[in-house]
Amino acid sequence: MERGTRGVKTKVFVSLKPSVFDPQGRTIVEALRSMGYGAVRDVRQGKYFELELEADSVDEARTTASEVADRLLANPVIESYHVEVDENGD
Amino acid sequence: MERGTRGVKTKVFVSLKPSVFDPQGRTIVEALRSMGYGAVRDVRQGKYFELELEADSVDEARTTASEVADRLLANPVIESYHVEVDENGD
Repeated sequence: MERGTRGVKTKVFVSLKPSVFDPQGRTIVEALRSMGYGAVRDVRQGKYFELELEADSVDEARTTASEVADRLLANPVIESYHVEVDENGD
Repeated sequence: MERGTRGVKTKVFVSLKPSVFDPQGRTIVEALRSMGYGAVRDVRQGKYFELELEADSVDEARTTASEVADRLLANPVIESYHVEVDENGD
């Protein structure tokens, strides 16, 4: 059981689907405009999670992180997610 | 002025500094444990922003995004940030 188990760091990025209106992003664009950053045309805000999990392999870590994103971290109706695994672990 | 100006996509990742307690992350770990994901040892929650901005170069885009992160998107007292620029633009 303990054989290959190790800590693996994974990152999950959750963002609103392109068709979903992002009022927080609009507010940021307007705030930036008033601060003189008119060059910023659009902002979309998302969430970012760093997960440290025990797994026997990188593939297992990726599978677990994807399940967790799908079941808890993202709302699949309006959000999409993307998982990255730190191959080196720790 | 219009010479090389183009839309450049940048990403800003904001996360709590390691020394700062993350109660949202702890709540997620506990929720996951109750769902059977005991392999997840730790979760840190951060923010993720996609910025579309007009810039003459990748360097200019990086500088603007870093300023925006420093002045509006992150709280430098408790958060750190990281900027990535999509070199291809659009």
